[in-house]
Amino acid sequence: MKGLWLENQQLQFREDIPTPQPPEGEALVKVLSAGICNTDLELIRGYYPYTGILGHEFVGIVEQGADELVNKRVVGEINAACGYCRFCKTGQPTHCENRSVLGIVNRNGAFADYLCLPVKNIYPIPDNVSTASATFTEPIAAALEIQQQIKISPNDQVLVVGDGKLGQLVAQTIALTGCELLVIGRHSEKLANLEARGIKTGFADAVKDRAFDISVECTGNSSGFDIARRALRARGTLVLKSTYAGKLHLDASSLVVDEITLIGSRCGSFPPALKLLAEEKVDVTPLIEASYPLEFGLAAFEKAQTKGVLKVLLEME
Amino acid sequence: MKGLWLENQQLQFREDIPTPQPPEGEALVKVLSAGICNTDLELIRGYYPYTGILGHEFVGIVEQGADELVNKRVVGEINAACGYCRFCKTGQPTHCENRSVLGIVNRNGAFADYLCLPVKNIYPIPDNVSTASATFTEPIAAALEIQQQIKISPNDQVLVVGDGKLGQLVAQTIALTGCELLVIGRHSEKLANLEARGIKTGFADAVKDRAFDISVECTGNSSGFDIARRALRARGTLVLKSTYAGKLHLDASSLVVDEITLIGSRCGSFPPALKLLAEEKVDVTPLIEASYPLEFGLAAFEKAQTKGVLKVLLEME
Repeated sequence: MKGLWLENQQLQFREDIPTPQPPEGEALVKVLSAGICNTDLELIRGYYPYTGILGHEFVGIVEQGADELVNKRVVGEINAACGYCRFCKTGQPTHCENRSVLGIVNRNGAFADYLCLPVKNIYPIPDNVSTASATFTEPIAAALEIQQQIKISPNDQVLVVGDGKLGQLVAQTIALTGCELLVIGRHSEKLANLEARGIKTGFADAVKDRAFDISVECTGNSSGFDIARRALRARGTLVLKSTYAGKLHLDASSLVVDEITLIGSRCGSFPPALKLLAEEKVDVTPLIEASYPLEFGLAAFEKAQTKGVLKVLLEME
Repeated sequence: MKGLWLENQQLQFREDIPTPQPPEGEALVKVLSAGICNTDLELIRGYYPYTGILGHEFVGIVEQGADELVNKRVVGEINAACGYCRFCKTGQPTHCENRSVLGIVNRNGAFADYLCLPVKNIYPIPDNVSTASATFTEPIAAALEIQQQIKISPNDQVLVVGDGKLGQLVAQTIALTGCELLVIGRHSEKLANLEARGIKTGFADAVKDRAFDISVECTGNSSGFDIARRALRARGTLVLKSTYAGKLHLDASSLVVDEITLIGSRCGSFPPALKLLAEEKVDVTPLIEASYPLEFGLAAFEKAQTKGVLKVLLEME
């Protein structure tokens, strides 16, 4: 089968990858569409050593492995958990100590004709959700993870730093809490997507120091972090939503004096994300920048790496 | 009056400091005893610019300002709050935006014959608590602040990094929760104080990676932070209890992937600390390394700055 293969930080388009055979308990999924995420770009930059097919945001059709799912259009949670470690046993499978992660850790990913995932990871897509929109289920779930970790109340002042793919989804999901939200970014055309939904936006100079209860860092760079930190009042919470290539230099004393909470946030659960899509409470269509056939995957990555570009999709057929 | 005065990072013993007159709402306290804290040492190193009398851990006798307290032996909370900002109005006076802090920010401290503090900050000391022991009320309150911020359960695996003054008090107070506690340090004679109380201790090599639910960093240096971070399981909580001179270099991606919570922790409330002292649930006597008259304050600081030394007290008469 065809696929985009990462090895030694080199991405290649290959046509000689063996089609996988699903092991017991897993489904074989024919991929329809897949999205390029910043984590994919970070993996190419060497943020984490990985060899194999990239890709973890996808929609596909189940071909084998679970009768009730065969021929259904599905999405899948990306952490394949062991089911018996202390995290699995306490309902935290995304932190399973023996997990593989689709296209990220020890498991071939979605930028290919086929992938395998445990049947328990797979969810059918509601009929009224388009394939392109459903490709965003994973990042919407990741955005919703924030609200699993911290309570956001209508009277909270919340700042989202970053107007990229993730920042926009984080902003849309946080806006649903009814809080006082400000999103800052560097691109007026991206911020306009959010303004159109009634979300207040601005550039960095719109941020008042020590005025926010919660800030969410979605840029993955240290200047974004600095803005998110400075914006917080004492006892505020800074959510780290992006991975960073390299180290962050932190004024630890100020965290102590202001009793700041810093919390890392990763993957979330899929059903609430599918529900939001089905109820049209988030709109991902303005985020789709371009769509390429899998054969043009390298060009798609070039596009995705261009500064300011939002979501680039790969279509498998 | 006599006092230890900090100016341009130089500490001086002076005898020409005017005795303060308490403003409306404040009490005049004759200081009996005061403890040298790491924050005092950090202030001398320039962690925060401060000019004035140092010192914030004290016991004294009220001489003026509140009839019901006059002639009583007292301790005092160090943050003098305005009473009307958003933090004061929401019961968080230690984060008052207009606060002065005894011997730290805009308020002369306790290494002197007299100090002033708002009457509402002052608490009488139970008769069965010695003056030397009560001098530890402030750091015990700071140690207890951790338990105001996060819940520690008997089945939690908790690591305290650091066997210094603060680490020992943090360890003693956390041990009261009945959790599975390990304290690590570099000095077997200090760890022996804790072993004598039935607390498990060890050196850095006793720490198993990714095994702890909660770690508390009490060293104020980056190697202590690294141990505290590595010790945590996914979704664990790292409490930053010490201020740091300089920046901390942090692997932010690992905080995201493991969804770690990092929380800064500073001052706590005095009544629970006094209660623990009165009930003899903490024992501070093994922490007292030496005691100097105020006149020998510079020698006391020299002693306090010696590697491995625990609490040095100043006695005012």
